[in-house]
Amino acid sequence: MIFPKEVEIIEVGPRDGLQNESVFVPTKMKKELVRKLSKMGVRRIETASFVHPKAVPQMADAVELATFSNELGIDYIALTPNMRALARAIDCNVPQIAVFVGATETFNQRNIRSSIADSLGECTLVFKKAKACNMKIRAYVSMGFSCPYEGTVAYEQVARVVRHFVNIGADEISIGDTNGKANPRIVYERFSRMKHDFPETQFIAHFHDTNQFAYANVLAALQAGITKFDSSIAGLGGCPFSPGATGNVSTEGLVKLFHEMNIETGMDEKAMMDAANFAKGLLQQLTSS
Amino acid sequence: MIFPKEVEIIEVGPRDGLQNESVFVPTKMKKELVRKLSKMGVRRIETASFVHPKAVPQMADAVELATFSNELGIDYIALTPNMRALARAIDCNVPQIAVFVGATETFNQRNIRSSIADSLGECTLVFKKAKACNMKIRAYVSMGFSCPYEGTVAYEQVARVVRHFVNIGADEISIGDTNGKANPRIVYERFSRMKHDFPETQFIAHFHDTNQFAYANVLAALQAGITKFDSSIAGLGGCPFSPGATGNVSTEGLVKLFHEMNIETGMDEKAMMDAANFAKGLLQQLTSS
Repeated sequence: MIFPKEVEIIEVGPRDGLQNESVFVPTKMKKELVRKLSKMGVRRIETASFVHPKAVPQMADAVELATFSNELGIDYIALTPNMRALARAIDCNVPQIAVFVGATETFNQRNIRSSIADSLGECTLVFKKAKACNMKIRAYVSMGFSCPYEGTVAYEQVARVVRHFVNIGADEISIGDTNGKANPRIVYERFSRMKHDFPETQFIAHFHDTNQFAYANVLAALQAGITKFDSSIAGLGGCPFSPGATGNVSTEGLVKLFHEMNIETGMDEKAMMDAANFAKGLLQQLTSS
Repeated sequence: MIFPKEVEIIEVGPRDGLQNESVFVPTKMKKELVRKLSKMGVRRIETASFVHPKAVPQMADAVELATFSNELGIDYIALTPNMRALARAIDCNVPQIAVFVGATETFNQRNIRSSIADSLGECTLVFKKAKACNMKIRAYVSMGFSCPYEGTVAYEQVARVVRHFVNIGADEISIGDTNGKANPRIVYERFSRMKHDFPETQFIAHFHDTNQFAYANVLAALQAGITKFDSSIAGLGGCPFSPGATGNVSTEGLVKLFHEMNIETGMDEKAMMDAANFAKGLLQQLTSS
């Protein structure tokens, strides 16, 4: 087995996590969460979404969070799946944007009422403009292994989305087990093939712990040469559009796994637990009030 | 990565599992559990312990369970860590016995008030007599990776117990992460080295899911060439109803993992879930009464 010396963990709790929680988290609390996360040694944090507030009210405070992230001086990511969202992100001097497209037609239609082709077309425009503004670009492929509507997702379904992202210049591509149904074999085989077919591309593994296989999937991804992982503090979030799917893999669980395997993450465990406890307390407080 | 075509799962719920539950399970219910387990396609079940009833009252009905297991015609394992226990097992025509020794002096002393050397000495006598009676012999090494009293357990501490077991003729050796602190790296490295140093020996991996790393550890053991795994139906032995429960990896979780990876277990999922639900209901009933 291959064990890398170090990995990068990308914290997605404030955006991917909170967006998928049923309670609304006040901006002040989100800022405090981001502030705590910025102290734990993570290199990048997904802090905001510029998706229209009508579509995702939870993320209506994108400008405030981006401004706050700028003030903190952190490297952060904001979701900008279309040109309108991108325009707002540009106004906020966001350093890295993210877009997402589903690997299956059914999911993409249900998630954002758009065909994969149309979504990728919009991404082409977004990438062009973002590049002109010197923004870094992250691209998510949702349902990268399995889909709640279509079942097992074939390699080629994912590859065609990846191919488009690569061709239009994504800096990195995060393959999501959005449905939480992946197993170590498909993870190993899929990432190995991805890296073979797209040797210049930076891939990230994004796991959900629905079946408690997330850590085994992480190990399988490591064996395929993946060294970048998305995770969410306290396991915040899931995916409301994916029935039965709960839970991003937690940052603290992932860090514990890596540290016990003597793999460096650059994370400070004490600061991380402080952020995790804050995130848990925040949800408890909001749920009970 | 290496994915074997098939694995063997050894069900340890009725003995290792129930022994570690706080509630006393009546013999009639244990028999029903064993009967259900015998239908799920598992090749071997650990059903009884001949440890003195004063030491482990939960297992006082060993004779009845062994007799019942004989009637069912199943291949089963019974714990016989000393000559008195073995004598009772011989009277019951037990096909396979099991002994256990801790890898650390402190644990062995606290667990059975005996030094490792004395325990191994007793095992030598037990093995000799059991072999004369054509019994198969399983040997457990407890705390095979980490110890609650001594911390990380060195390879040589485990190897010296294994070496003794091999020399006196164990048919198989189960290395237990009794403390639930193993990680995929130590699992891979330890089992790889064990298989190198004891090439003729049949090793079994016995994981606890304390840190939620059990499935990752299973994957690591698979990569080291281990194809036999102990597990416990419904995770018995870890009180599945209390939050933060720690205990044996569950049979149904392990089977789900393997089946989703297209690795054969010979297990019938429907019969297995029937047994798992029975086990859960049994504990719920006994806990609430």
